[in-house]
Amino acid sequence: MGKYASDLDMVFLALAHPARRAMLARLGQGEATVGELAEPLGISLPAVTKHLKVMERAKLISRSRNAQWRPCRLEAGPLTAASGWIDEQRRVWEGRFDRLETYLGALEGEEGRRDDR
Amino acid sequence: MGKYASDLDMVFLALAHPARRAMLARLGQGEATVGELAEPLGISLPAVTKHLKVMERAKLISRSRNAQWRPCRLEAGPLTAASGWIDEQRRVWEGRFDRLETYLGALEGEEGRRDDR
Repeated sequence: MGKYASDLDMVFLALAHPARRAMLARLGQGEATVGELAEPLGISLPAVTKHLKVMERAKLISRSRNAQWRPCRLEAGPLTAASGWIDEQRRVWEGRFDRLETYLGALEGEEGRRDDR
Repeated sequence: MGKYASDLDMVFLALAHPARRAMLARLGQGEATVGELAEPLGISLPAVTKHLKVMERAKLISRSRNAQWRPCRLEAGPLTAASGWIDEQRRVWEGRFDRLETYLGALEGEEGRRDDR
């Protein structure tokens, strides 16, 4: 992953680790401190901080600069972009099968008419 | 990414590269050979093969064993699992705001009733 990785690259990379997905799921329920994120995962604070950096780089989370404990919050935009990309592929893919079905349906109809003769 | 990375880990990792996303978008339109995938991307066949391996490991694509050219085809299941995970987070996240809105609405109603006295 180079220095100029795109936004989507960084979002999908951030999602490619179970600890980071667990942290995002936790943050979906509300802001949390590093300690609160570490506790249920049973991993060290430095490990959590490393994961948080990957998610901050992907803009999936932001951290308060004011509060002493710098709580983390989920940012929904990049998640929407990521599922948007997947949904777009699915529309193309499903559209292809819909067209195939229409075509096969038309063929069948033609067969039927031929049989009627 | 360890040897025991989960299915979702491998899917999100596979999506974290623009060339692989371009190849998946192409395969959404129908089967393609390695050569057909390489051409629009302007990358070498070995580079394409390397990307295909990452996508095969994530079960995002399968390759025909019979045909001489071993065309690649998109497998929709893992994409559905990936967007399913994201959508689940969104439901939690949006549910939280809906509850907040209901709560604020209730508070406002109470304020209104108080003002009426």
